[in-house]
Amino acid sequence: MSGLINRGVTLTNRPQGTPQTSDFALVEYPVPEIREGEVLRRTVYLSLDPYMRGRMRDVASYTTPAALGTPMVGGTVSQVIESKNEAFAVGDFVLGYDGWQEYGVSTGGELRKLDPAHAPLSYALGALGMPGLTAYAALLDIGKPKAGETVVVSAAAGAVGSLVGQMARILGCRAVGLAGSDEKCRFVTEELGFDACINYKTQPLDEALQESCPNGIDVYYDNVAGAILEAVLGRINLGARIPLVGLISQYNATTPPAGPNLMPLLVKRALIQGFLVVDHYHREEAFQADMSRWIREGAVKVYEDTVEGLENAPEAFLGLFSGKNVGKLLVQVSPAP
Amino acid sequence: MSGLINRGVTLTNRPQGTPQTSDFALVEYPVPEIREGEVLRRTVYLSLDPYMRGRMRDVASYTTPAALGTPMVGGTVSQVIESKNEAFAVGDFVLGYDGWQEYGVSTGGELRKLDPAHAPLSYALGALGMPGLTAYAALLDIGKPKAGETVVVSAAAGAVGSLVGQMARILGCRAVGLAGSDEKCRFVTEELGFDACINYKTQPLDEALQESCPNGIDVYYDNVAGAILEAVLGRINLGARIPLVGLISQYNATTPPAGPNLMPLLVKRALIQGFLVVDHYHREEAFQADMSRWIREGAVKVYEDTVEGLENAPEAFLGLFSGKNVGKLLVQVSPAP
Repeated sequence: MSGLINRGVTLTNRPQGTPQTSDFALVEYPVPEIREGEVLRRTVYLSLDPYMRGRMRDVASYTTPAALGTPMVGGTVSQVIESKNEAFAVGDFVLGYDGWQEYGVSTGGELRKLDPAHAPLSYALGALGMPGLTAYAALLDIGKPKAGETVVVSAAAGAVGSLVGQMARILGCRAVGLAGSDEKCRFVTEELGFDACINYKTQPLDEALQESCPNGIDVYYDNVAGAILEAVLGRINLGARIPLVGLISQYNATTPPAGPNLMPLLVKRALIQGFLVVDHYHREEAFQADMSRWIREGAVKVYEDTVEGLENAPEAFLGLFSGKNVGKLLVQVSPAP
Repeated sequence: MSGLINRGVTLTNRPQGTPQTSDFALVEYPVPEIREGEVLRRTVYLSLDPYMRGRMRDVASYTTPAALGTPMVGGTVSQVIESKNEAFAVGDFVLGYDGWQEYGVSTGGELRKLDPAHAPLSYALGALGMPGLTAYAALLDIGKPKAGETVVVSAAAGAVGSLVGQMARILGCRAVGLAGSDEKCRFVTEELGFDACINYKTQPLDEALQESCPNGIDVYYDNVAGAILEAVLGRINLGARIPLVGLISQYNATTPPAGPNLMPLLVKRALIQGFLVVDHYHREEAFQADMSRWIREGAVKVYEDTVEGLENAPEAFLGLFSGKNVGKLLVQVSPAP
């Protein structure tokens, strides 16, 4: 075939803050003749997703940055128009990763064939694709919602959030969304069937969460972090689970967010979990056995900081906050045996 | 017996910011005659712990606030001096919760007998008591350290931190502490055997963590939150675990900390976990089966926002950050079948 002219959208420079259309360029370049084993396809659908903002940075993150001057990366649904690979026939539809361009060429190892009879082809980039799996796995495997619980999701009108809330309803949960306009909130409740939706741009968050979540919040599926996460934390129930899936509130920020930046939790798939010892007395027996042995064997040394006299308790206590003591702080109130 | 005069330290007003000795008063009051079933004991050791600061607030937290004008709450080791309860004999040593006072009276249901031959009695308030179980259960059950990993602990010279690092060493991990003075750091490395200790008051945190944790951080046992947590997050490894056990950096704060206040995570024993879909393709099969069925049955509705023409991709992409789209954003690059 050949003779075809490809068109692609390239990143021309790395955006500072919010990207501008001037950070991109539409360029043309020839489609190469395909070689033995290769397959040529024409893009039908290109997926646009928030994670692409991360690729535009020149910072090592969980993936390598997009290169300047080449087409931006992205998921695609394409149709095979020429094939020198037995696995693909002209006319086949495939899910691939051809990026922001009209034609793609490769040996096809990364392609997955799509059956147009199964579902609309575009679903492979959404509800039945990466955003769908994101909604599904993070909600079920980290959020672990149980029937009767309250599930809150931010960016509720978006590709992922819209699925999360609908899944929460299927699982018998109360689904509460957050979105940025009244129109989106109507969409979320009336079309998607969420129980409630908060317009976080116009409603006072604390009050709105209290009203929409009368039984507190058991699962918060977080796509945005920032102020919404802060408000949600004020309403969480005992043992709440918060899958941190996106931090879109800070993707375009040019200064670090206030307080601990939770981005590394996402990038490193890490976990913070609150601990109160009162929940852990079922470990008492193992603890006593292990710790007693370690102390006996000298593997654990015990240091105490003992203050004499009950009247000195207040001053000793204050020392805990000015870093005075080393080891366990005790007051000896009466003579020890 | 009776005729005894009790002495106690009461909270006279709720501290604003850092507590002062003037927030406490030493008071005397008679010890009552004990009734049938009761046991009278004399306090030998009183435990002083950071959690007591929380009890001084008049805010519903995970426990009720300490009452003004009555002795402050606290764990105690005591000796029975009079008993009208068969379960306890004069001379017995018991672990209890008599608070900041010299004598305690109760029916004894909350007491646990201590064997002075097993370990020094004071250990029941430290290494073999609540702080010990806190170190043990949070490190093992949330931190889940594996041999060869790096465990970082803040307040490393304290009652809990000193045990955490020693346990990390027993488990074959690299143990790195943070403490507030060079003297404490020497104690932590030379006496407790940690591999390294950072003086967070004098050393630049980012550089010091990089130097002390050349292989990154797998477990961060957090007793303090705040700036140290922020710095640690910059060095965590894939799949890191962070038991949030204390937030001592903000216990005396009079204004909220910058950014999301993580205190509710502790109070509610909640979990935040970062999620990237790339780790979850083992869920692909279940996801495709469930989501396809939900769509087919109409339980999940799919909404798409489709923009025509590759040349419109940049503007459509920018819309993701200004809240323009609803549902899955796609670019139709060539005609769909």
